[in-house]
Amino acid sequence: MQIERPYALFLGDAPDQLAAKTAGGIATWRPEWCVGQIRLPDCKADLGLADMTVAEAAAKGAKTLIVGVANRGGVIGGAWLKTILEAMDLGMDVAAGLHQRLADVPEIKAHADKLGRQLFDVRHPTQEFAVASGKPRTGKRLLAVGTDCSVGKMYTALAIEKEMKAQGMKVDFRATGQTGIFIAGSGVSVDAVVADFISGAVEWLSPANDPDHWDIVEGQGSLFHASYAGVSLGLIHGAQADALVLCHDPVRDHMRGLPEYQLPDIKSCMDLNLVHARLVNPEVRFVGICLNTSAMKPEAAATMKAELSKAFGLPCVDPLKDGVAPIVAELAKI
Amino acid sequence: MQIERPYALFLGDAPDQLAAKTAGGIATWRPEWCVGQIRLPDCKADLGLADMTVAEAAAKGAKTLIVGVANRGGVIGGAWLKTILEAMDLGMDVAAGLHQRLADVPEIKAHADKLGRQLFDVRHPTQEFAVASGKPRTGKRLLAVGTDCSVGKMYTALAIEKEMKAQGMKVDFRATGQTGIFIAGSGVSVDAVVADFISGAVEWLSPANDPDHWDIVEGQGSLFHASYAGVSLGLIHGAQADALVLCHDPVRDHMRGLPEYQLPDIKSCMDLNLVHARLVNPEVRFVGICLNTSAMKPEAAATMKAELSKAFGLPCVDPLKDGVAPIVAELAKI
Repeated sequence: MQIERPYALFLGDAPDQLAAKTAGGIATWRPEWCVGQIRLPDCKADLGLADMTVAEAAAKGAKTLIVGVANRGGVIGGAWLKTILEAMDLGMDVAAGLHQRLADVPEIKAHADKLGRQLFDVRHPTQEFAVASGKPRTGKRLLAVGTDCSVGKMYTALAIEKEMKAQGMKVDFRATGQTGIFIAGSGVSVDAVVADFISGAVEWLSPANDPDHWDIVEGQGSLFHASYAGVSLGLIHGAQADALVLCHDPVRDHMRGLPEYQLPDIKSCMDLNLVHARLVNPEVRFVGICLNTSAMKPEAAATMKAELSKAFGLPCVDPLKDGVAPIVAELAKI
Repeated sequence: MQIERPYALFLGDAPDQLAAKTAGGIATWRPEWCVGQIRLPDCKADLGLADMTVAEAAAKGAKTLIVGVANRGGVIGGAWLKTILEAMDLGMDVAAGLHQRLADVPEIKAHADKLGRQLFDVRHPTQEFAVASGKPRTGKRLLAVGTDCSVGKMYTALAIEKEMKAQGMKVDFRATGQTGIFIAGSGVSVDAVVADFISGAVEWLSPANDPDHWDIVEGQGSLFHASYAGVSLGLIHGAQADALVLCHDPVRDHMRGLPEYQLPDIKSCMDLNLVHARLVNPEVRFVGICLNTSAMKPEAAATMKAELSKAFGLPCVDPLKDGVAPIVAELAKI
């Protein structure tokens, strides 16, 4: 799989900023690959990139239209069709990370076939996986886990990879979702794997390695999310983590997509993740807490970070504002 | 999906009795549908049915060859091919519940197409599911959970359904695996569902119902199984159980397929299942413990049942030897 760059990021009719998190992740971590954003009139997301039409993106040399927006259930919205077809008319390939395949939408498939464009459905694994063996393996692994979906697990993992690289450590980011795959260039969308093979796919993704090499594994969902917890648990067992980082959004007022459900408290969440992670690695421990404080006042954020750090005896940072050096310092002790 | 009866049960080259559990389940719960068993020379499983050749099964009127054997990973074994092709030659359809589809084996597909036979891959869902909503729903549900795979969860569920029917209660068995689907005539193999939709598939399988109606949901795997726990957790959240039954095999010396892993103790297993089940139904509680005592001396089994019953204040039975009336009596209190 080789997706040609640069990208034009299509945000569609995203109802909020979170719905465009795929595009947002690419723009944040690979800005040099993005010519701009393309938005439909009722789009509520904005990445701060130059707004442009499909024609303007093509003129700027965009090779691939990235469908960087998700909706609940992962279906390709009818309102997006015109943009996708036009991009192909103007020479672009199209890539998406949704449950529904681009190639399964008849108009898109027919148009791509007619024009000789490539369609990339990065959520859909292109290989078969084995059932997880659970056997201990060499190398070290860190897994980002969360109180909820979309609380910063991928950003945390990417920030840790960047800091470890800057310090000259041996490290790889291992992508487990569509945005991470666009950013890493490879990976497995574990939520699209057949259920029996979730853990096996993660064992494949983070194989045995040098004793001083770290895989930084992107987490998915939350053990406390009534829709997706099975994915989170399979990921925990497959990752066989030596270190966990807890990710949390302090201003989230209910579990994402589930208005009836409250977020767990940090201690319960850490305890339950440890219970499961210890099954495959009894030595696993938390090395830090990462908060998304983007919607908090600086004083409130500082107070919360100090309190959590004291309560758990761990570094507590906002990875985008504070960096993750204290967490990497903890990792270096393992 | 309508699989024609009677069945001929094909045990292939099953390396042990557990590998033929699909065929064994059908023979135990629907003996009137089975003309006999067909075994390859090195088969180590025996259901106690009449041994016969494919030709003899056809002569006895078998309409469908059930591939009632599984191997790790769910691949269709090369040694089985001759029997499967011969069954089609003699007029039978073929049904299997493996990860690999019959229809994906070129020789099988070509032969079925040529002869006009039907291939049933019951593990593969034929419909799409929604993401789980987690919303409370009417009706009552019992879920069988286990310390390990293959410890009697399906047998327990079927025994409870049978006893409740005998008592005139409103009840349905809800199959979540291939054997259960052969027995129930419908269901969803949840381990074959795309990971994001595990819980959603179980919500679909056990929908809102009359307040006094019970769905008896077949469990899968174990929260303590390093290969399959994600499936088990998704099932727990989707089932939104009012009642749980713990299933256990007291003579199992390690987790199935994982020699490095010991079984959890009963209390830890019950506690962890409750933590997760309470997320979607805070009132859930255990109503019994079911042991598979087939490999135990009667005195040892009686002692263990008495001790567990006393320790947890719950009925503890071997469903096949003792029946499940005490568990149904507990259910009636909910």
